[in-house]
Amino acid sequence: MLVYTQDKEKAKMKEMKSWVFWRAVAAEFVGMLIFIVVGIASAIGHPENGAQEVKVSLAFGLAIVTLAHSLGHISGAHLNPAVSLGLLVSCQISLLRFVCYVLAQMLGALAASAIMDGFRPGGTLGVNKLNGVTVGQGFVIEFLATLQLVLCVIAVTDKRRSDVKGSAPLAIGLSVGLGHFAAISFTGCGINPARSFGPAVIRSKMENHWVYWLGPVCGGTAAALIYDFLLYPRSEDFRTRWSVLVNGADNEANPPERREGSPVPGPSQWPK
Amino acid sequence: MLVYTQDKEKAKMKEMKSWVFWRAVAAEFVGMLIFIVVGIASAIGHPENGAQEVKVSLAFGLAIVTLAHSLGHISGAHLNPAVSLGLLVSCQISLLRFVCYVLAQMLGALAASAIMDGFRPGGTLGVNKLNGVTVGQGFVIEFLATLQLVLCVIAVTDKRRSDVKGSAPLAIGLSVGLGHFAAISFTGCGINPARSFGPAVIRSKMENHWVYWLGPVCGGTAAALIYDFLLYPRSEDFRTRWSVLVNGADNEANPPERREGSPVPGPSQWPK
Amino acid sequence: MLVYTQDKEKAKMKEMKSWVFWRAVAAEFVGMLIFIVVGIASAIGHPENGAQEVKVSLAFGLAIVTLAHSLGHISGAHLNPAVSLGLLVSCQISLLRFVCYVLAQMLGALAASAIMDGFRPGGTLGVNKLNGVTVGQGFVIEFLATLQLVLCVIAVTDKRRSDVKGSAPLAIGLSVGLGHFAAISFTGCGINPARSFGPAVIRSKMENHWVYWLGPVCGGTAAALIYDFLLYPRSEDFRTRWSVLVNGADNEANPPERREGSPVPGPSQWPK
Amino acid sequence: MLVYTQDKEKAKMKEMKSWVFWRAVAAEFVGMLIFIVVGIASAIGHPENGAQEVKVSLAFGLAIVTLAHSLGHISGAHLNPAVSLGLLVSCQISLLRFVCYVLAQMLGALAASAIMDGFRPGGTLGVNKLNGVTVGQGFVIEFLATLQLVLCVIAVTDKRRSDVKGSAPLAIGLSVGLGHFAAISFTGCGINPARSFGPAVIRSKMENHWVYWLGPVCGGTAAALIYDFLLYPRSEDFRTRWSVLVNGADNEANPPERREGSPVPGPSQWPK
Repeated sequence: MLVYTQDKEKAKMKEMKSWVFWRAVAAEFVGMLIFIVVGIASAIGHPENGAQEVKVSLAFGLAIVTLAHSLGHISGAHLNPAVSLGLLVSCQISLLRFVCYVLAQMLGALAASAIMDGFRPGGTLGVNKLNGVTVGQGFVIEFLATLQLVLCVIAVTDKRRSDVKGSAPLAIGLSVGLGHFAAISFTGCGINPARSFGPAVIRSKMENHWVYWLGPVCGGTAAALIYDFLLYPRSEDFRTRWSVLVNGADNEANPPERREGSPVPGPSQWPK
Repeated sequence: MLVYTQDKEKAKMKEMKSWVFWRAVAAEFVGMLIFIVVGIASAIGHPENGAQEVKVSLAFGLAIVTLAHSLGHISGAHLNPAVSLGLLVSCQISLLRFVCYVLAQMLGALAASAIMDGFRPGGTLGVNKLNGVTVGQGFVIEFLATLQLVLCVIAVTDKRRSDVKGSAPLAIGLSVGLGHFAAISFTGCGINPARSFGPAVIRSKMENHWVYWLGPVCGGTAAALIYDFLLYPRSEDFRTRWSVLVNGADNEANPPERREGSPVPGPSQWPK
Repeated sequence: MLVYTQDKEKAKMKEMKSWVFWRAVAAEFVGMLIFIVVGIASAIGHPENGAQEVKVSLAFGLAIVTLAHSLGHISGAHLNPAVSLGLLVSCQISLLRFVCYVLAQMLGALAASAIMDGFRPGGTLGVNKLNGVTVGQGFVIEFLATLQLVLCVIAVTDKRRSDVKGSAPLAIGLSVGLGHFAAISFTGCGINPARSFGPAVIRSKMENHWVYWLGPVCGGTAAALIYDFLLYPRSEDFRTRWSVLVNGADNEANPPERREGSPVPGPSQWPK
Repeated sequence: MLVYTQDKEKAKMKEMKSWVFWRAVAAEFVGMLIFIVVGIASAIGHPENGAQEVKVSLAFGLAIVTLAHSLGHISGAHLNPAVSLGLLVSCQISLLRFVCYVLAQMLGALAASAIMDGFRPGGTLGVNKLNGVTVGQGFVIEFLATLQLVLCVIAVTDKRRSDVKGSAPLAIGLSVGLGHFAAISFTGCGINPARSFGPAVIRSKMENHWVYWLGPVCGGTAAALIYDFLLYPRSEDFRTRWSVLVNGADNEANPPERREGSPVPGPSQWPK
């Protein structure tokens, strides 16, 4: 009898997980659309203003603060393929989730770039480009600015810690702002391949575009490896890690509160 | 005997609710007056300064941070008809509260604009106007900048969540700042019909004024619908939702701690 | 026997209170000295920089954030006669504490102004002066900018609330920053009589100096009255309020954790 | 039998401590490398921008916010010899830890400066130098700006307090930002000998370099003494203090959660 109840429970959970999963993918799309609209809007609105770099850095940072507060409990609010990759390397999300999230992020960035394309027709649409640095230097700055961001994401969402007292979305958003303060003069600051991808495709300016993929991809991977193997090693064995990559972290044994990809505990009351 | 006590309790609660309600309306008026005074003051004080857009964006954002900390437990500190509308669409406040709040907000904005009218007689009084964009583009940017704000308000005050660890007023205020970073170059950033209404009336500059109503109204409504039906569906049935719209959320069955409109639990010790 | 123990306890508490009180006064002096040094330094260092108003506003705001984090548990970190006055009007501190705090704050501001006097000899030393406004307008802006600050202080430290989840020092410091964003172009932003007093005395520039006392004094008083009698009435009777003004809030019946003037609970482990 | 178990436990803890200790030193190196890279990058990227001082101040401040969130549970995230010195004077870390941390910090700063050396070949590499002030004035401003930072660190990590509700890393990072707002026009803002040391060595510009050591060293020491002996005296006797300096705070009697140098409780689940 108990088994029967558990089976019904399992089936219900599976069904639920499916909705939860696709809502999470939808949240990544909606969130990325808003993120890129407000980011590009701040960048192209009045680019000759004296505090342009401060304005754009704060805008991208606060956009992540806001959207992680709004969507963190739905999708984890990655809103960045480099963040999703870091969490994949750290064996915290499944490969399926990684692929769906990255596609949703890229579609969201494309849609947002298309929306903003008409706003300042003569402007840059916030396309990332190198400014007075070699491609190697561009790679280095994108690598390090992404590394600090993904390190921050992995550290403040580490479930082994009980000491993160403030708001994780605020911490992560300020890290995004920091990346912009560091990189904006040199590369325009990508640290997010989808953010670089959207405007570059809409305006067909793909020069050195690979730097904005390779830098963040290596930075996100390095952050996960440094944290998980050097600075604060995890004790999970290989089989547990592999299981997450294949099945996700939110399998039937886990209550929805601990579902995969979310930096925060889930709701205690679910839609029926 | 118990019934009698409950009846007395009910009567007392009703009486109390009445005072609590009108204090909340007064808080919306006082808060809106302060909000528009400090916002306009920051906008007109020294408009040619090099960091004007950063200054004004931070001022409006920090004003909401401060006033939501100061008044959140009294009225919920909406301070924005679009926020009140979003909470109405989400069936979290009564129609009566919505109407009274919006009237108080508009009166507060008018009073503040009248106070600030004499400060820089040749200045703009912070009237919102389109800057190098069509009315359609103005609508789009007001729509999206308001959508992200109301989405943030509804998400961080969602009572089903237990994971919002930092300060909700800070999250919401930073979202207001974000809206300004995105929209200020294009529309001056309304995202708040009362804020646009006050200076426009005092200076009789109503050109394209409808954009500053339609954009936020649609953005606030869309945010509530997207959150409640797509991203994080609510399980309340139609009757429960309707009851809130008519009777408010703070009916006799609820302790004052959970009263309508407040993003935060109320006081445990009440005035007698 | 119990009585005897209580008497010993009382005597010990009184002795302790005395040290605690004078440490609090010392903290107000040290805190005010640091506050005015860093504030003036940010104002006079490079006044022609394009983001001067943003820089000075953030500096004064972050100074209160930092010092309230550092000294809040020692003195409550008023660091402003208008804040001390608001708490006196709200019957939360004794008259003795008010007088000692204000004297310590003024001495601290004088010392800091004397230290900074030599740094930019031709500069203004951050003296507050009216800029393109009448004295009446100067009064209004100082009044309202102080009102929002003291309202925030009284609201976030209201012991009846259990809903202030973030950092009270952060909330109060951001409110100070907000006051500067609003008032800096018109009056240089006093909202703190001691801050206005120090540089004015050292440079002997007392023109319109009374505005920087009357505005904050009226604003702080108005904030306390509006909060305590209109927006969120307190239930204490007259005798309880009077007792606080004469004896302080930290009488023998209260454990040191709830001592007067502190926005935060005190230490559980005391020096012997 | 119990003794035997305890002995095994002790041996295990000692072994563990060793790894924990060297991971902490590695975290100081990695953190300092990221800190100086992003700080210098923000300073040299576009130095003629109108809001340069605001940009650099926020960048250094947010870098500490981010890295303290990422590494606080591993090393305490000192990332500053003056902070390590303040904690040594306050008898909270061992002499061994102090020496290893400072060496790691200086190496990290050197490596970061070498990386950034090629980015703007004609630029300053963010070398700290006096700007329109005497060496005495430079010492005073470095002294006071460091004092407020170390005071904030010691106060918000004081284990006797239970009232620090927000994020300690945010509080400390904003204090770093404040130091920059105050000092950046006069000295470029060191308040961190390792940060001053790295670029000065790489560019061989050691003029007045001693100011950037003496000021922070005296400021950090003064902060520890003022807090521990004047403002909020500690009750530990001399032997306890001495024991920490020699053996560290994380001896066998302490669970790893309370290990030395960490402003936050440690993980409840350790690598095996």
